[in-house]
Amino acid sequence: MKKSSPVLIAIGAAVVSLVAVPQAHSDEGMWTFNNFPKQAVKERYGVSIDDAWLDHVRLSSARLAQGCSASFVSASGLVMTNHHCAHSCIEQLSTPARDLIKLGYTAKTEADELKCPEMEVNQLAEIEDVTERVRKVTAGLSDQKYNEAEKAELSRIEKECATSPDLRCDVVTLYRGGIYNLYKYRRYQDVRLAFAPELAIAFFGGDPDNFNFPRYNLDVAFVRVYKDGKPAMLDHHLAWSAGGAKEGEVTFVSGHPGSTGRLLTLAQTEYLRDVALPERLLRLAEVRGFLTEYQRRGPEQKRTAKHMLFSAENAMKALRGQHGALVDPAFFGRLRAEEQKLRQTVAGNPEWQKLYGGAWDAVATAQEQQKALRKPYNFLELGLGFTSDLYGHARTLVRAAEERGKPIEKRFREYRDSALPALTQRLFSAAPIHDELEKATLTFALTKLREELGADDPVVRKVLGKESPEELANRVISGTKLKDVAVRRALWDGGKKAVDAANDPLIKLFKIVDPDARAIRKRFEDGVEAPIKKNAELLAKARFAAQGTSAYPDATFSLRLSYGRVEGWQEPGRKVTPFTTVAGAFERATGREPFDLPATWLEGRARINGKTPFNFVTTNDIIGGNSGSPVINAKGEVVGLVFDGNIHSLGGHFGFDEAKNRTVSVHSEAIIESLGKLYGADRLVKELRPRAARTERGGPLGGGALLRETSRRARDVAAGEPAAAAAPSTPTPAAPVAR
Amino acid sequence: MKKSSPVLIAIGAAVVSLVAVPQAHSDEGMWTFNNFPKQAVKERYGVSIDDAWLDHVRLSSARLAQGCSASFVSASGLVMTNHHCAHSCIEQLSTPARDLIKLGYTAKTEADELKCPEMEVNQLAEIEDVTERVRKVTAGLSDQKYNEAEKAELSRIEKECATSPDLRCDVVTLYRGGIYNLYKYRRYQDVRLAFAPELAIAFFGGDPDNFNFPRYNLDVAFVRVYKDGKPAMLDHHLAWSAGGAKEGEVTFVSGHPGSTGRLLTLAQTEYLRDVALPERLLRLAEVRGFLTEYQRRGPEQKRTAKHMLFSAENAMKALRGQHGALVDPAFFGRLRAEEQKLRQTVAGNPEWQKLYGGAWDAVATAQEQQKALRKPYNFLELGLGFTSDLYGHARTLVRAAEERGKPIEKRFREYRDSALPALTQRLFSAAPIHDELEKATLTFALTKLREELGADDPVVRKVLGKESPEELANRVISGTKLKDVAVRRALWDGGKKAVDAANDPLIKLFKIVDPDARAIRKRFEDGVEAPIKKNAELLAKARFAAQGTSAYPDATFSLRLSYGRVEGWQEPGRKVTPFTTVAGAFERATGREPFDLPATWLEGRARINGKTPFNFVTTNDIIGGNSGSPVINAKGEVVGLVFDGNIHSLGGHFGFDEAKNRTVSVHSEAIIESLGKLYGADRLVKELRPRAARTERGGPLGGGALLRETSRRARDVAAGEPAAAAAPSTPTPAAPVAR
Repeated sequence: MKKSSPVLIAIGAAVVSLVAVPQAHSDEGMWTFNNFPKQAVKERYGVSIDDAWLDHVRLSSARLAQGCSASFVSASGLVMTNHHCAHSCIEQLSTPARDLIKLGYTAKTEADELKCPEMEVNQLAEIEDVTERVRKVTAGLSDQKYNEAEKAELSRIEKECATSPDLRCDVVTLYRGGIYNLYKYRRYQDVRLAFAPELAIAFFGGDPDNFNFPRYNLDVAFVRVYKDGKPAMLDHHLAWSAGGAKEGEVTFVSGHPGSTGRLLTLAQTEYLRDVALPERLLRLAEVRGFLTEYQRRGPEQKRTAKHMLFSAENAMKALRGQHGALVDPAFFGRLRAEEQKLRQTVAGNPEWQKLYGGAWDAVATAQEQQKALRKPYNFLELGLGFTSDLYGHARTLVRAAEERGKPIEKRFREYRDSALPALTQRLFSAAPIHDELEKATLTFALTKLREELGADDPVVRKVLGKESPEELANRVISGTKLKDVAVRRALWDGGKKAVDAANDPLIKLFKIVDPDARAIRKRFEDGVEAPIKKNAELLAKARFAAQGTSAYPDATFSLRLSYGRVEGWQEPGRKVTPFTTVAGAFERATGREPFDLPATWLEGRARINGKTPFNFVTTNDIIGGNSGSPVINAKGEVVGLVFDGNIHSLGGHFGFDEAKNRTVSVHSEAIIESLGKLYGADRLVKELRPRAARTERGGPLGGGALLRETSRRARDVAAGEPAAAAAPSTPTPAAPVAR
Repeated sequence: MKKSSPVLIAIGAAVVSLVAVPQAHSDEGMWTFNNFPKQAVKERYGVSIDDAWLDHVRLSSARLAQGCSASFVSASGLVMTNHHCAHSCIEQLSTPARDLIKLGYTAKTEADELKCPEMEVNQLAEIEDVTERVRKVTAGLSDQKYNEAEKAELSRIEKECATSPDLRCDVVTLYRGGIYNLYKYRRYQDVRLAFAPELAIAFFGGDPDNFNFPRYNLDVAFVRVYKDGKPAMLDHHLAWSAGGAKEGEVTFVSGHPGSTGRLLTLAQTEYLRDVALPERLLRLAEVRGFLTEYQRRGPEQKRTAKHMLFSAENAMKALRGQHGALVDPAFFGRLRAEEQKLRQTVAGNPEWQKLYGGAWDAVATAQEQQKALRKPYNFLELGLGFTSDLYGHARTLVRAAEERGKPIEKRFREYRDSALPALTQRLFSAAPIHDELEKATLTFALTKLREELGADDPVVRKVLGKESPEELANRVISGTKLKDVAVRRALWDGGKKAVDAANDPLIKLFKIVDPDARAIRKRFEDGVEAPIKKNAELLAKARFAAQGTSAYPDATFSLRLSYGRVEGWQEPGRKVTPFTTVAGAFERATGREPFDLPATWLEGRARINGKTPFNFVTTNDIIGGNSGSPVINAKGEVVGLVFDGNIHSLGGHFGFDEAKNRTVSVHSEAIIESLGKLYGADRLVKELRPRAARTERGGPLGGGALLRETSRRARDVAAGEPAAAAAPSTPTPAAPVAR
């Protein structure tokens, strides 16, 4: 493919005016790179952003395919992201005897860089509008046919595009159905860990401080992308700024916000508020209680369950914030007023009313259907009833054996050809699987399956028979051979014949579930997905007609750019200033988890400059999935690293409030300062700032946690609403999450 | 006091027409005994209920003071209630070597009956209207003064009435403030366990089947009240029916529904829906996850945490039902319409409008205040941050030392003289306290304290210092001497001087919390309780003015009578028949918990008649706290034993739907059949049916669980909303629960 080809500026032929009417009075917006409001930025901040700047920043931005953002920060493939985004990899590289989560890791030489078993890094090379092509095949079709035709066409487009495993092609649906853009990524699956600090400083303050500020987190990790066994040479990467972010400075965040629900209809938002969020929160709370106590079984259990617990706690806090926003009468009143205004505008134009006027009620009807189907759909098809990595492998093998034999337009989307490289990376991952945790999570899930569908549900009876959830979980996990990667590979290669002949208890368990799971999926797709998709297109058109294209689309885990500035905010009775310093971490430390500083810091206290800015806040509009995004100044240089939002930003899922919503980042100086002064990572410092020796000052550094990345299993255990629609980001097609 | 004195028929001088306008078309209502709609029952069921019948049933009814209902079923003090209502006692009487929860217990002789450490049984001897007396002292006062004057007067009334420890006097506030009635109870604190089946059959189907039907639960226990070391001789008790409940038969339930919210304003209901219920549910879910895994530490941990886990699961299911009702648009729409109708009626009468028109908004304002204060209030004053029996004892000792020195009208209500017998029964209880569980629950609570108030909250900092929640919990529980009843007694007897001199770590911990707890309580009482109380009186008057007194008051854990009939209900696509049989339990059994029948049943299968009715449903209107209520036929005989409601009944907290809400009971024949054929409890069978030898038929039996009774600690751990307003019933004044 072409390198750094210019982005095709088109978000859809239906849209004529591509230069947005600037929203000069707000930093709101997660803008696509082909519809960035340059004029608004110029008017508000006096900064001129041109296409070359946008191309450079886009090509210097990276996505971690399992759910985070990142950036390229050297010509030799160095990638900066959050510690909490690399947590899975770091945990997978750990052993009971060498816990890199606890100890941290600094690769002294390139040869010391450790390969992550399941990490995939994407670089957005090109965006192409394919709206017309999709519209052509769906035009005039009714809900179900529309849905099937659309999915088939997306799979065809992606297959044509993905001519090599190094190329990842995803059609992104923008504005919830108005526009289809093909995002072409360079794909890197050989990704190696270069640096990670100790969790104690990466996530200093732990869950109590999560989503709060002031903060003191060195939530950073460096990985490196390799090509043919050598560090990948890159044409674009972000330079490191001298001195980092300053108060009042304009800041840009380039990253991959996972999901927002700002364009949902009221019926959809009410469903989230009343049904989906409470149910998901209850599950998360129970998972949290269970894992907290599970960790007390012993140090090894503590180690292996750590990331899963973090994911649950992080999601829980995020979703509580979302729920809190929706039950706030003033906040929800604004959402209601916006929908009413749009509906009135549409109703005032007879042609629009005829074309679009029925869409809201149609979505509401589909939403009722979703409420009715959600439990069997979530528990059987989305797998809430069977949270286990090994069960996931069994499912992938059985489903793939069936689906790969079908023509592409008949397959489940997650088994389309272009999805297979990511799918097989996970399936053949050498990451350790912990039997005890597998048994515990599967027991939990089966218990919930029985609880939510009822002990007399026919599928529940088929699954459990006379066994208790615990007995069943222990039997299938003890008996399966799927822990062996070679066994999984043989079954994959052997296809349907091999899978049909397999006597593995997990394969057999999934085969019991599969017919019912497929049946409920069919009902869900026809009764919920199809009408929502079809009517979402109408709603998007109505919005374009009534309001123009000055709006940005909802987040979709595709690359977006937001702008803002370094600024604190006002709490009742006190002003929150935008910076913390390294010295503050020492003051806050109690020596007890999660307020315990690692030995590196305690011993190195005299070496590190306490005045170094540690964390800071900006007005950028972000959401889960933006974790790991670079904070960039007007010159396109790194001034920080996004790792969290403040507590007010959680309502940002449904609407942005510039007065209070803040992005929380590690200051670029804190990174340099700690790498050099505490971790002996001079190799990386030189790589980040090749000409920095002369500009070195007192230099500061920083750390914290906006978790959006979620391990597959943690996501499954904790789910209850689309990971996307929920909090920790990343809708990975192969592992959908509950509705 | 007089025995079986006639109830004073007066629920308030302001109310003129005491004979209710019959609601002939519904079985709705939890009626007070002095305002029972006899005419409505006659019209609907052709059954004449006279005052003698009412007196007999009232005096044959019993209350378990910690949160359940019961009945006197023999002249020698035998009391029938649910197994789940006696669970705490049975657990307290167990040891690691002899687990009566698991094994069951049958006292072969009177001498074998085992004394429950903390059980108190009440018999309602008399009701006296004291409305005028209270109104006299509150007339014309503003919120705060009104509240203080009211509470002082209630304490005085109760003190004057409670002339002996054998007498319990509680002023009951009816209609949320319209009416004050003094309930005079005979109090029994020497209560002994006579019979309990194994938990496996008492709660067959466990949490999965809880609140469901068909059911197969032998949820029964018999205790006996003693007086001067001998079985108490009773003038009134319920006779046992021949054959038990029949389909279509009229049924009465006499019991103590804990709390309903049917007369709450919309603002209060919205607060529950949006804030209090979600928060309480999240806490319960986390407690549940934690305790489920805690039980896996070992068999002793499983045994000692069983009731606490059951309480959490039961409450969780109940509250999910309440939340589900409130987020149902049709259900909530009815509540909204009712309030609007009343407000319009009031607004249509200028005098009423002037007197009452402002009350709704005043309550809404207080509700906003509650939202603002709820976290420090719940965690510090209501003790959510410190759930531990031993901490509870420390708190009682410190507070009592202070409060007992004050004149009665200045004391906290829970330390008024008339409350002390119940309070000291708990404080001096010999029930075992399990250090490991204490440490675990206190660790949990302290973690939530830090989480909800924030790590930087001044009280949190004072409490934790540099310790982690776990370190603090371990230190204070290991270090305290309060496990020793003699130490508690000495501190109680030693009063303020002894408590001030105490060096006990739990006493010291509570002393750190006490000033802030008192301060937030003051703010809460003045800003929330006072305006709500004052305006609730206005709302009650408005309702009486607009609608007459044909209504029943919200449940208040005081004696109520409901009427109905044995009848199934219609589910989509299927009719649920009202009876199950003993044979059904054997069919449902899997041999795995919670579907495992005990050995008694498996071995005795041939002896017991499988056709015996086991459980059944009726249309009676009940709620948590009714657990253990007798189901009575028109002749006043026992035909069953209430232990649960069906899943639809959970919304009954806010409104009754006769089409679907059902009471679930153990059939009286199932009790007799199992006592005689399986448990060798002929002694009890003869006592229950002294003339039954000749009427004996094939006889059936039954079991299940509507938990309302909650152990003190379980309630604390799980709380988040008034135990009362929540689910498991029983507002015990000494252990209030979160708002």
